[in-house]
Amino acid sequence: MSLARFSFNQATANNWPLPELVEGCAAAAVPSVGLWRAPVAEYGLARTTKLVHDAGLAVSSLCRGGFFSADDWLTDNRHAIDEAATLGAPVLILVPGGLGARALDAARAHVATALDALVPHASEAGVRLAIEPMHPMYCADRGVVSTVASALALAAPYPSKAVGVVIDTYHVWWDDLIWSVIETAGGRIASFQAADWITPLPEGVLLGRGLPGTGCVDIRRFARAVTAAGYSGPLEIEVFNAALWTRPGPEILAATIESYLSHVMP
Amino acid sequence: MSLARFSFNQATANNWPLPELVEGCAAAAVPSVGLWRAPVAEYGLARTTKLVHDAGLAVSSLCRGGFFSADDWLTDNRHAIDEAATLGAPVLILVPGGLGARALDAARAHVATALDALVPHASEAGVRLAIEPMHPMYCADRGVVSTVASALALAAPYPSKAVGVVIDTYHVWWDDLIWSVIETAGGRIASFQAADWITPLPEGVLLGRGLPGTGCVDIRRFARAVTAAGYSGPLEIEVFNAALWTRPGPEILAATIESYLSHVMP
Repeated sequence: MSLARFSFNQATANNWPLPELVEGCAAAAVPSVGLWRAPVAEYGLARTTKLVHDAGLAVSSLCRGGFFSADDWLTDNRHAIDEAATLGAPVLILVPGGLGARALDAARAHVATALDALVPHASEAGVRLAIEPMHPMYCADRGVVSTVASALALAAPYPSKAVGVVIDTYHVWWDDLIWSVIETAGGRIASFQAADWITPLPEGVLLGRGLPGTGCVDIRRFARAVTAAGYSGPLEIEVFNAALWTRPGPEILAATIESYLSHVMP
Repeated sequence: MSLARFSFNQATANNWPLPELVEGCAAAAVPSVGLWRAPVAEYGLARTTKLVHDAGLAVSSLCRGGFFSADDWLTDNRHAIDEAATLGAPVLILVPGGLGARALDAARAHVATALDALVPHASEAGVRLAIEPMHPMYCADRGVVSTVASALALAAPYPSKAVGVVIDTYHVWWDDLIWSVIETAGGRIASFQAADWITPLPEGVLLGRGLPGTGCVDIRRFARAVTAAGYSGPLEIEVFNAALWTRPGPEILAATIESYLSHVMP
Protein backbone atom coordinates (compact mmCIF):
# COMPACT_ATOMS: atom_id res chain seq x y z
CA MET A 1 0.00 0.00 0.00
CA SER A 2 1.39 3.30 -1.09
CA LEU A 3 -0.15 6.72 -1.16
CA ALA A 4 3.01 8.29 -2.56
CA ARG A 5 1.24 9.70 -5.63
CA PHE A 6 -2.23 10.10 -4.14
CA SER A 7 -3.77 13.53 -3.89
CA PHE A 8 -7.14 14.26 -2.32
CA ASN A 9 -9.02 16.95 -4.17
CA GLN A 10 -10.94 19.09 -1.75
CA ALA A 11 -14.08 19.07 -3.90
CA THR A 12 -14.50 15.36 -3.20
CA ALA A 13 -15.51 16.31 0.34
CA ASN A 14 -17.11 19.60 -0.54
CA ASN A 15 -18.63 20.25 2.89
CA TRP A 16 -15.60 19.32 4.99
CA PRO A 17 -14.16 22.46 6.63
CA LEU A 18 -10.64 23.11 5.42
CA PRO A 19 -8.81 22.77 8.78
CA GLU A 20 -10.48 19.43 9.43
CA LEU A 21 -9.74 18.25 5.90
CA VAL A 22 -6.08 19.15 6.29
CA GLU A 23 -5.90 17.47 9.68
CA GLY A 24 -7.63 14.37 8.32
CA CYS A 25 -5.32 14.12 5.33
CA ALA A 26 -2.21 14.57 7.44
CA ALA A 27 -3.37 11.93 9.90
CA ALA A 28 -3.97 9.49 7.02
CA ALA A 29 -0.49 10.13 5.59
CA VAL A 30 -1.94 11.67 2.46
CA PRO A 31 0.94 13.55 0.84
CA SER A 32 -0.97 16.18 -1.10
CA VAL A 33 -4.26 17.90 -1.64
CA GLY A 34 -5.91 19.70 -4.55
CA LEU A 35 -7.51 22.94 -3.38
CA TRP A 36 -10.29 25.19 -4.67
CA ARG A 37 -10.15 28.96 -4.68
CA ALA A 38 -13.49 29.67 -2.99
CA PRO A 39 -12.88 27.66 0.23
CA VAL A 40 -9.29 28.88 0.29
CA ALA A 41 -10.51 32.48 0.11
CA GLU A 42 -13.09 31.80 2.77
CA TYR A 43 -10.50 30.45 5.20
CA GLY A 44 -7.97 33.04 4.06
CA LEU A 45 -5.15 32.59 1.57
CA ALA A 46 -2.31 33.18 4.03
CA ARG A 47 -3.96 31.08 6.72
CA THR A 48 -4.51 28.23 4.27
CA THR A 49 -0.92 28.40 3.10
CA LYS A 50 0.33 28.15 6.66
CA LEU A 51 -2.19 25.45 7.53
CA VAL A 52 -1.22 23.06 4.73
CA HIS A 53 2.48 23.67 5.05
CA ASP A 54 2.46 23.20 8.81
CA ALA A 55 0.65 19.93 8.25
CA GLY A 56 3.36 18.80 5.85
CA LEU A 57 0.98 18.63 2.90
CA ALA A 58 1.85 19.58 -0.63
CA VAL A 59 -0.72 21.33 -2.81
CA SER A 60 -0.94 19.37 -6.06
CA SER A 61 -3.11 21.88 -7.89
CA LEU A 62 -5.34 24.88 -7.48
CA CYS A 63 -8.79 24.72 -9.06
CA ARG A 64 -9.59 26.71 -10.98
CA GLY A 65 -8.71 29.47 -13.34
CA GLY A 66 -10.20 29.74 -16.78
CA PHE A 67 -13.86 30.54 -17.47
CA PHE A 68 -12.66 32.82 -20.20
CA SER A 69 -16.26 33.50 -21.14
CA ALA A 70 -16.57 35.79 -18.11
CA ASP A 71 -16.06 39.52 -18.57
CA ASP A 72 -13.45 39.73 -15.83
CA TRP A 73 -11.44 36.72 -16.99
CA LEU A 74 -8.13 38.54 -17.22
CA THR A 75 -8.17 40.04 -13.74
CA ASP A 76 -9.62 36.93 -12.23
CA ASN A 77 -7.04 34.62 -13.77
CA ARG A 78 -4.18 36.88 -12.72
CA HIS A 79 -5.46 36.59 -9.17
CA ALA A 80 -5.75 32.83 -9.55
CA ILE A 81 -2.13 32.61 -10.67
CA ASP A 82 -0.99 34.68 -7.69
CA GLU A 83 -3.01 32.52 -5.32
CA ALA A 84 -1.47 29.35 -6.73
CA ALA A 85 1.98 30.82 -6.31
CA THR A 86 1.27 31.80 -2.70
CA LEU A 87 -0.03 28.32 -1.90
CA GLY A 88 2.97 26.70 -3.52
CA ALA A 89 0.69 24.94 -6.00
CA PRO A 90 2.78 24.15 -9.08
CA VAL A 91 -0.28 23.93 -11.29
CA LEU A 92 -3.33 26.11 -11.91
CA ILE A 93 -6.15 24.14 -13.52
CA LEU A 94 -7.86 26.07 -16.30
CA VAL A 95 -11.47 25.15 -17.00
CA PRO A 96 -11.89 27.00 -20.28
CA GLY A 97 -15.48 28.15 -19.80
CA GLY A 98 -18.42 27.79 -22.15
CA LEU A 99 -19.66 29.82 -25.08
CA GLY A 100 -20.86 32.89 -23.23
CA ALA A 101 -21.77 35.38 -25.94
CA ARG A 102 -19.49 33.77 -28.53
CA ALA A 103 -20.09 31.18 -31.23
CA LEU A 104 -18.13 27.95 -30.80
CA ASP A 105 -15.21 28.68 -33.11
CA ALA A 106 -14.80 32.16 -31.64
CA ALA A 107 -14.97 30.82 -28.09
CA ARG A 108 -12.23 28.32 -28.87
CA ALA A 109 -10.11 31.00 -30.50
CA HIS A 110 -10.62 33.15 -27.43
CA VAL A 111 -9.06 30.45 -25.24
CA ALA A 112 -5.87 30.81 -27.28
CA THR A 113 -6.03 34.60 -26.86
CA ALA A 114 -6.49 34.25 -23.13
CA LEU A 115 -3.57 31.84 -22.78
CA ASP A 116 -1.37 34.25 -24.63
CA ALA A 117 -2.31 37.00 -22.22
CA LEU A 118 -1.70 34.85 -19.13
CA VAL A 119 1.44 32.85 -19.89
CA PRO A 120 4.00 35.59 -19.11
CA HIS A 121 2.47 36.32 -15.70
CA ALA A 122 2.13 32.62 -14.87
CA SER A 123 5.70 31.85 -15.88
CA GLU A 124 7.04 34.71 -13.79
CA ALA A 125 5.03 33.42 -10.85
CA GLY A 126 6.35 29.89 -11.37
CA VAL A 127 2.86 28.49 -11.91
CA ARG A 128 2.16 26.08 -14.73
CA LEU A 129 -1.14 26.57 -16.53
CA ALA A 130 -2.99 23.31 -17.16
CA ILE A 131 -5.75 23.35 -19.77
CA GLU A 132 -8.50 20.95 -18.79
CA PRO A 133 -10.39 19.39 -21.69
CA MET A 134 -13.96 19.01 -20.51
CA HIS A 135 -16.46 16.35 -21.44
CA PRO A 136 -18.36 17.47 -24.58
CA MET A 137 -21.57 17.65 -22.54
CA TYR A 138 -20.05 20.76 -20.91
CA CYS A 139 -19.08 22.40 -24.19
CA ALA A 140 -21.87 24.98 -24.11
CA ASP A 141 -21.61 26.10 -20.52
CA ARG A 142 -18.32 25.04 -18.89
CA GLY A 143 -15.56 24.17 -21.28
CA VAL A 144 -15.26 24.63 -25.02
CA VAL A 145 -12.08 22.55 -25.19
CA SER A 146 -13.47 19.05 -25.66
CA THR A 147 -10.54 16.75 -26.35
CA VAL A 148 -7.00 16.24 -25.10
CA ALA A 149 -5.77 16.62 -28.68
CA SER A 150 -7.24 20.10 -28.95
CA ALA A 151 -5.88 21.05 -25.51
CA LEU A 152 -2.43 19.93 -26.62
CA ALA A 153 -2.76 22.09 -29.73
CA LEU A 154 -3.59 25.10 -27.55
CA ALA A 155 -0.57 24.38 -25.34
CA ALA A 156 1.84 23.77 -28.23
CA PRO A 157 2.98 27.38 -28.78
CA TYR A 158 4.37 27.59 -25.23
CA PRO A 159 7.10 25.76 -23.36
CA SER A 160 5.90 22.59 -21.60
CA LYS A 161 6.91 24.09 -18.29
CA ALA A 162 4.57 27.02 -18.90
CA VAL A 163 1.48 25.31 -20.29
CA GLY A 164 0.32 21.73 -19.99
CA VAL A 165 -2.91 19.77 -20.02
CA VAL A 166 -5.05 17.95 -17.49
CA ILE A 167 -6.06 14.36 -18.07
CA ASP A 168 -9.30 13.86 -16.14
CA THR A 169 -10.74 10.40 -16.68
CA TYR A 170 -14.32 11.63 -16.31
CA HIS A 171 -13.91 14.03 -19.20
CA VAL A 172 -11.94 11.93 -21.66
CA TRP A 173 -12.74 8.24 -21.10
CA TRP A 174 -15.04 8.02 -24.16
CA ASP A 175 -12.41 9.31 -26.63
CA ASP A 176 -11.43 6.55 -29.04
CA LEU A 177 -8.15 8.32 -29.81
CA ILE A 178 -7.16 8.90 -26.19
CA TRP A 179 -4.49 6.21 -25.84
CA SER A 180 -2.45 7.35 -28.80
CA VAL A 181 -2.91 10.96 -27.75
CA ILE A 182 -1.66 10.25 -24.23
CA GLU A 183 1.34 8.38 -25.64
CA THR A 184 2.41 11.49 -27.48
CA ALA A 185 1.45 13.96 -24.72
CA GLY A 186 4.53 13.17 -22.62
CA GLY A 187 5.82 16.22 -20.83
CA ARG A 188 2.64 18.19 -21.49
CA ILE A 189 0.67 16.26 -18.89
CA ALA A 190 0.53 18.69 -15.98
CA SER A 191 -2.19 17.08 -13.89
CA PHE A 192 -4.11 13.84 -13.58
CA GLN A 193 -7.56 13.74 -12.06
CA ALA A 194 -9.82 10.77 -11.68
CA ALA A 195 -13.53 10.18 -11.31
CA ASP A 196 -15.71 7.39 -12.61
CA TRP A 197 -18.67 7.61 -14.99
CA ILE A 198 -21.99 6.50 -13.54
CA THR A 199 -25.49 6.69 -14.97
CA PRO A 200 -28.12 8.02 -14.98
CA LEU A 201 -26.73 11.53 -15.08
CA PRO A 202 -28.42 13.98 -12.73
CA GLU A 203 -30.06 17.23 -13.81
CA GLY A 204 -27.33 19.69 -14.77
CA VAL A 205 -24.86 16.79 -15.11
CA LEU A 206 -22.42 18.23 -12.60
CA LEU A 207 -22.83 16.24 -9.40
CA GLY A 208 -23.13 12.69 -10.70
CA ARG A 209 -19.51 11.54 -10.80
CA GLY A 210 -18.43 8.37 -9.08
CA LEU A 211 -15.51 7.31 -6.93
CA PRO A 212 -13.08 5.18 -8.96
CA GLY A 213 -14.44 1.65 -9.17
CA THR A 214 -18.11 2.61 -8.99
CA GLY A 215 -18.57 3.17 -12.73
CA CYS A 216 -17.46 1.98 -16.15
CA VAL A 217 -14.08 3.64 -16.62
CA ASP A 218 -10.84 1.66 -16.45
CA ILE A 219 -9.11 4.33 -14.42
CA ARG A 220 -6.01 2.29 -13.61
CA ARG A 221 -5.39 1.99 -17.34
CA PHE A 222 -5.37 5.78 -17.52
CA ALA A 223 -3.02 6.08 -14.53
CA ARG A 224 -0.66 3.59 -16.17
CA ALA A 225 -0.90 5.32 -19.55
CA VAL A 226 0.01 8.78 -18.24
CA THR A 227 2.81 7.24 -16.20
CA ALA A 228 4.13 5.40 -19.25
CA ALA A 229 3.98 8.68 -21.16
CA GLY A 230 6.32 10.24 -18.60
CA TYR A 231 3.99 11.80 -16.04
CA SER A 232 5.17 11.02 -12.53
CA GLY A 233 3.14 13.59 -10.64
CA PRO A 234 0.18 13.37 -8.27
CA LEU A 235 -2.88 11.29 -9.12
CA GLU A 236 -5.75 13.35 -7.78
CA ILE A 237 -9.13 11.92 -7.02
CA GLU A 238 -11.76 14.57 -7.68
CA VAL A 239 -15.37 13.47 -7.44
CA PHE A 240 -18.40 15.75 -7.51
CA ASN A 241 -21.23 13.67 -6.14
CA ALA A 242 -24.21 15.05 -4.27
CA ALA A 243 -24.78 11.84 -2.29
CA LEU A 244 -21.12 11.44 -1.38
CA TRP A 245 -21.04 15.02 -0.13
CA THR A 246 -23.65 14.25 2.53
CA ARG A 247 -21.28 11.83 4.27
CA PRO A 248 -18.83 12.91 7.00
CA GLY A 249 -15.46 14.09 5.70
CA PRO A 250 -13.41 11.32 7.33
CA GLU A 251 -15.63 8.67 5.73
CA ILE A 252 -15.27 10.28 2.32
CA LEU A 253 -11.49 10.42 2.69
CA ALA A 254 -11.34 6.76 3.75
CA ALA A 255 -13.52 5.69 0.82
CA THR A 256 -11.42 7.78 -1.56
CA ILE A 257 -8.16 6.25 -0.32
CA GLU A 258 -9.66 2.79 -0.69
CA SER A 259 -10.80 3.57 -4.24
CA TYR A 260 -7.33 4.93 -5.07
CA LEU A 261 -5.58 1.82 -3.88
CA SER A 262 -8.03 -0.55 -5.56
CA HIS A 263 -8.70 1.19 -8.84
CA VAL A 264 -6.19 3.94 -9.59
CA MET A 265 -2.68 3.33 -8.27
CA PRO A 266 -0.69 2.23 -11.31
CA MET B 1 -40.26 28.80 -48.75
CA SER B 2 -39.53 25.22 -49.60
CA LEU B 3 -40.06 22.05 -47.66
CA ALA B 4 -38.58 19.91 -50.43
CA ARG B 5 -35.92 18.42 -48.16
CA PHE B 6 -37.77 18.67 -44.87
CA SER B 7 -38.64 15.51 -42.96
CA PHE B 8 -40.61 15.44 -39.73
CA ASN B 9 -39.32 12.81 -37.34
CA GLN B 10 -42.19 11.24 -35.47
CA ALA B 11 -40.36 11.43 -32.13
CA THR B 12 -40.60 15.23 -32.25
CA ALA B 13 -44.33 14.86 -31.53
CA ASN B 14 -44.03 11.72 -29.47
CA ASN B 15 -47.64 11.69 -28.27
CA TRP B 16 -49.31 12.45 -31.61
CA PRO B 17 -51.19 9.38 -32.84
CA LEU B 18 -49.74 8.12 -36.10
CA PRO B 19 -52.84 8.61 -38.32
CA GLU B 20 -53.20 12.19 -37.15
CA LEU B 21 -49.50 12.84 -37.62
CA VAL B 22 -49.64 11.52 -41.17
CA GLU B 23 -52.74 13.55 -41.93
CA GLY B 24 -51.16 16.66 -40.44
CA CYS B 25 -47.95 16.24 -42.40
CA ALA B 26 -49.79 15.63 -45.67
CA ALA B 27 -51.98 18.69 -45.10
CA ALA B 28 -48.87 20.80 -44.48
CA ALA B 29 -47.20 19.56 -47.67
CA VAL B 30 -44.46 17.85 -45.71
CA PRO B 31 -42.85 15.43 -48.16
CA SER B 32 -41.46 12.86 -45.74
CA VAL B 33 -41.47 11.54 -42.21
CA GLY B 34 -39.01 9.65 -40.04
CA LEU B 35 -40.75 6.82 -38.21
CA TRP B 36 -40.05 4.82 -35.06
CA ARG B 37 -40.52 1.11 -34.74
CA ALA B 38 -42.62 1.04 -31.56
CA PRO B 39 -45.45 3.33 -32.75
CA VAL B 40 -45.33 1.66 -36.17
CA ALA B 41 -45.74 -1.76 -34.52
CA GLU B 42 -48.53 -0.41 -32.35
CA TYR B 43 -50.49 0.85 -35.34
CA GLY B 44 -49.48 -2.16 -37.40
CA LEU B 45 -46.68 -2.40 -39.96
CA ALA B 46 -48.92 -3.07 -42.96
CA ARG B 47 -51.45 -0.45 -41.88
CA THR B 48 -48.70 2.12 -41.41
CA THR B 49 -47.23 1.35 -44.80
CA LYS B 50 -50.59 1.85 -46.47
CA LEU B 51 -51.31 4.95 -44.41
CA VAL B 52 -48.14 6.82 -45.32
CA HIS B 53 -48.18 5.76 -48.95
CA ASP B 54 -51.83 6.68 -49.41
CA ALA B 55 -51.02 10.08 -47.94
CA GLY B 56 -48.24 10.53 -50.47
CA LEU B 57 -45.54 10.68 -47.82
CA ALA B 58 -42.08 9.20 -48.16
CA VAL B 59 -40.44 7.56 -45.16
CA SER B 60 -37.01 9.13 -44.81
CA SER B 61 -35.71 6.74 -42.17
CA LEU B 62 -36.75 4.14 -39.67
CA CYS B 63 -35.50 4.58 -36.11
CA ARG B 64 -33.98 2.47 -34.85
CA GLY B 65 -31.90 -0.63 -35.12
CA GLY B 66 -28.68 -1.10 -33.25
CA PHE B 67 -28.49 -1.51 -29.47
CA PHE B 68 -25.98 -4.25 -30.06
CA SER B 69 -25.50 -4.51 -26.31
CA ALA B 70 -28.82 -6.37 -26.08
CA ASP B 71 -28.81 -10.17 -26.07
CA ASP B 72 -31.28 -10.38 -28.95
CA TRP B 73 -29.53 -7.82 -31.16
CA LEU B 74 -29.23 -10.10 -34.18
CA THR B 75 -32.87 -11.15 -34.35
CA ASP B 76 -34.09 -7.71 -33.47
CA ASN B 77 -32.01 -5.97 -36.12
CA ARG B 78 -33.08 -8.44 -38.80
CA HIS B 79 -36.66 -7.57 -37.94
CA ALA B 80 -35.81 -3.88 -38.07
CA ILE B 81 -34.32 -4.27 -41.55
CA ASP B 82 -37.42 -6.10 -42.76
CA GLU B 83 -39.67 -3.44 -41.28
CA ALA B 84 -37.70 -0.69 -43.03
CA ALA B 85 -37.99 -2.55 -46.32
CA THR B 86 -41.74 -2.98 -45.90
CA LEU B 87 -42.18 0.70 -45.11
CA GLY B 88 -40.08 1.70 -48.09
CA ALA B 89 -37.63 3.46 -45.77
CA PRO B 90 -34.30 3.58 -47.57
CA VAL B 91 -32.37 3.96 -44.32
CA LEU B 92 -32.35 2.12 -41.00
CA ILE B 93 -30.79 4.26 -38.26
CA LEU B 94 -28.45 2.26 -36.04
CA VAL B 95 -28.00 3.55 -32.51
CA PRO B 96 -25.05 1.39 -31.49
CA GLY B 97 -26.02 0.80 -27.87
CA GLY B 98 -23.95 1.25 -24.75
CA LEU B 99 -21.45 -0.91 -22.94
CA GLY B 100 -23.81 -3.54 -21.60
CA ALA B 101 -21.55 -6.20 -20.10
CA ARG B 102 -18.56 -5.23 -22.25
CA ALA B 103 -15.61 -2.92 -21.66
CA LEU B 104 -15.42 0.06 -24.01
CA ASP B 105 -12.95 -1.33 -26.55
CA ALA B 106 -14.82 -4.63 -26.71
CA ALA B 107 -18.16 -2.89 -27.10
CA ARG B 108 -16.80 -0.88 -30.01
CA ALA B 109 -15.33 -3.99 -31.62
CA HIS B 110 -18.70 -5.67 -31.21
CA VAL B 111 -20.35 -2.96 -33.31
CA ALA B 112 -18.08 -3.99 -36.18
CA THR B 113 -19.01 -7.64 -35.63
CA ALA B 114 -22.69 -6.79 -35.63
CA LEU B 115 -22.42 -4.78 -38.83
CA ASP B 116 -20.69 -7.65 -40.52
CA ALA B 117 -23.53 -9.95 -39.53
CA LEU B 118 -26.23 -7.55 -40.74
CA VAL B 119 -24.91 -6.08 -43.98
CA PRO B 120 -25.80 -9.01 -46.28
CA HIS B 121 -29.40 -9.14 -45.06
CA ALA B 122 -29.77 -5.37 -45.27
CA SER B 123 -28.31 -5.18 -48.78
CA GLU B 124 -30.64 -7.94 -49.99
CA ALA B 125 -33.54 -6.05 -48.49
CA GLY B 126 -32.44 -2.81 -50.15
CA VAL B 127 -32.05 -1.04 -46.82
CA ARG B 128 -29.03 1.10 -46.09
CA LEU B 129 -27.65 0.85 -42.58
CA ALA B 130 -26.78 4.22 -41.07
CA ILE B 131 -24.48 4.23 -38.06
CA GLU B 132 -25.40 7.08 -35.73
CA PRO B 133 -22.51 8.50 -33.71
CA MET B 134 -23.97 9.50 -30.37
CA HIS B 135 -22.93 12.35 -28.11
CA PRO B 136 -20.19 11.12 -25.75
CA MET B 137 -22.54 11.61 -22.80
CA TYR B 138 -24.41 8.54 -24.12
CA CYS B 139 -21.28 6.41 -24.51
CA ALA B 140 -21.99 4.25 -21.45
CA ASP B 141 -25.66 3.55 -21.99
CA ARG B 142 -26.79 4.35 -25.54
CA GLY B 143 -24.05 4.54 -28.09
CA VAL B 144 -20.39 3.61 -27.91
CA VAL B 145 -19.63 5.22 -31.28
CA SER B 146 -18.85 8.79 -30.26
CA THR B 147 -17.57 10.59 -33.36
CA VAL B 148 -18.39 10.76 -37.04
CA ALA B 149 -14.80 9.80 -37.82
CA SER B 150 -15.14 6.53 -35.92
CA ALA B 151 -18.52 5.83 -37.52
CA LEU B 152 -16.94 6.33 -40.94
CA ALA B 153 -14.19 3.90 -40.01
CA LEU B 154 -16.81 1.30 -39.08
CA ALA B 155 -18.61 1.87 -42.38
CA ALA B 156 -15.46 1.80 -44.51
CA PRO B 157 -15.28 -1.97 -45.15
CA TYR B 158 -18.66 -1.93 -46.89
CA PRO B 159 -19.99 -0.25 -50.03
CA SER B 160 -21.41 3.22 -49.41
CA LYS B 161 -24.79 2.02 -50.60
CA ALA B 162 -24.81 -0.63 -47.89
CA VAL B 163 -23.51 1.30 -44.88
CA GLY B 164 -23.47 5.01 -44.20
CA VAL B 165 -23.47 7.35 -41.25
CA VAL B 166 -25.93 9.74 -39.63
CA ILE B 167 -24.98 13.33 -39.00
CA ASP B 168 -27.14 14.48 -36.08
CA THR B 169 -26.29 17.99 -35.01
CA TYR B 170 -27.17 17.33 -31.37
CA HIS B 171 -24.58 14.56 -31.16
CA VAL B 172 -21.70 16.08 -33.09
CA TRP B 173 -21.84 19.87 -32.79
CA TRP B 174 -19.02 20.03 -30.21
CA ASP B 175 -16.50 18.11 -32.36
CA ASP B 176 -13.67 20.42 -33.38
CA LEU B 177 -12.82 18.16 -36.31
CA ILE B 178 -16.37 17.88 -37.64
CA TRP B 179 -16.09 20.23 -40.62
CA SER B 180 -13.14 18.48 -42.18
CA VAL B 181 -14.69 15.10 -41.41
CA ILE B 182 -17.95 16.06 -43.13
CA GLU B 183 -16.02 17.32 -46.14
CA THR B 184 -14.51 13.90 -46.63
CA ALA B 185 -17.64 11.93 -45.70
CA GLY B 186 -19.32 12.55 -49.06
CA GLY B 187 -21.35 9.58 -50.16
CA ARG B 188 -21.28 7.99 -46.73
CA ILE B 189 -23.78 10.46 -45.32
CA ALA B 190 -26.98 8.44 -45.22
CA SER B 191 -29.09 10.62 -42.96
CA PHE B 192 -29.15 14.11 -41.49
CA GLN B 193 -30.99 14.84 -38.27
CA ALA B 194 -31.17 18.12 -36.44
CA ALA B 195 -31.83 19.24 -32.90
CA ASP B 196 -30.40 22.11 -30.94
CA TRP B 197 -28.37 22.02 -27.72
CA ILE B 198 -29.96 23.72 -24.74
CA THR B 199 -28.92 23.81 -21.10
CA PRO B 200 -29.34 22.85 -18.34
CA LEU B 201 -29.57 19.21 -19.29
CA PRO B 202 -32.37 17.30 -17.59
CA GLU B 203 -31.89 14.19 -15.46
CA GLY B 204 -31.02 11.29 -17.74
CA VAL B 205 -30.06 13.79 -20.50
CA LEU B 206 -32.49 12.35 -23.02
CA LEU B 207 -35.43 14.74 -23.22
CA GLY B 208 -33.69 18.11 -23.20
CA ARG B 209 -33.09 18.76 -26.87
CA GLY B 210 -34.28 21.93 -28.53
CA LEU B 211 -35.95 22.85 -31.79
CA PRO B 212 -33.44 24.39 -34.21
CA GLY B 213 -32.90 28.01 -33.24
CA THR B 214 -33.56 27.58 -29.54
CA GLY B 215 -29.98 26.64 -28.59
CA CYS B 216 -26.35 27.25 -29.44
CA VAL B 217 -25.78 25.10 -32.53
CA ASP B 218 -25.36 26.66 -35.98
CA ILE B 219 -27.57 24.04 -37.60
CA ARG B 220 -27.79 25.72 -40.99
CA ARG B 221 -24.00 25.50 -41.21
CA PHE B 222 -24.33 21.74 -40.76
CA ALA B 223 -27.08 21.49 -43.39
CA ARG B 224 -24.91 23.43 -45.81
CA ALA B 225 -21.83 21.36 -45.00
CA VAL B 226 -23.49 17.99 -45.64
CA THR B 227 -25.02 19.38 -48.82
CA ALA B 228 -21.65 20.64 -50.00
CA ALA B 229 -20.21 17.21 -49.23
CA GLY B 230 -22.70 15.67 -51.63
CA TYR B 231 -25.66 14.75 -49.44
CA SER B 232 -28.91 15.79 -51.11
CA GLY B 233 -31.31 13.72 -49.00
CA PRO B 234 -33.90 14.63 -46.39
CA LEU B 235 -33.09 16.99 -43.52
CA GLU B 236 -34.96 15.49 -40.59
CA ILE B 237 -35.86 17.44 -37.51
CA GLU B 238 -35.81 15.10 -34.53
CA VAL B 239 -36.26 16.72 -31.13
CA PHE B 240 -36.79 14.86 -27.87
CA ASN B 241 -38.13 17.45 -25.48
CA ALA B 242 -40.45 16.71 -22.59
CA ALA B 243 -42.04 20.17 -22.62
CA LEU B 244 -42.52 20.19 -26.39
CA TRP B 245 -44.22 16.79 -26.17
CA THR B 246 -46.99 18.22 -23.99
CA ARG B 247 -48.16 20.50 -26.82
CA PRO B 248 -50.76 19.43 -29.43
CA GLY B 249 -49.30 17.66 -32.46
CA PRO B 250 -50.34 20.30 -35.00
CA GLU B 251 -48.64 23.02 -32.93
CA ILE B 252 -45.44 20.99 -32.72
CA LEU B 253 -45.46 20.39 -36.48
CA ALA B 254 -46.01 24.10 -37.18
CA ALA B 255 -43.19 25.07 -34.82
CA THR B 256 -40.91 22.47 -36.38
CA ILE B 257 -41.61 23.69 -39.91
CA GLU B 258 -40.94 27.26 -38.80
CA SER B 259 -37.65 26.21 -37.18
CA TYR B 260 -36.67 24.31 -40.33
CA LEU B 261 -37.27 27.29 -42.59
CA SER B 262 -35.55 29.74 -40.25
CA HIS B 263 -32.60 27.72 -39.00
CA VAL B 264 -31.98 24.58 -41.05
CA MET B 265 -32.86 24.88 -44.75
CA PRO B 266 -29.51 25.34 -46.49
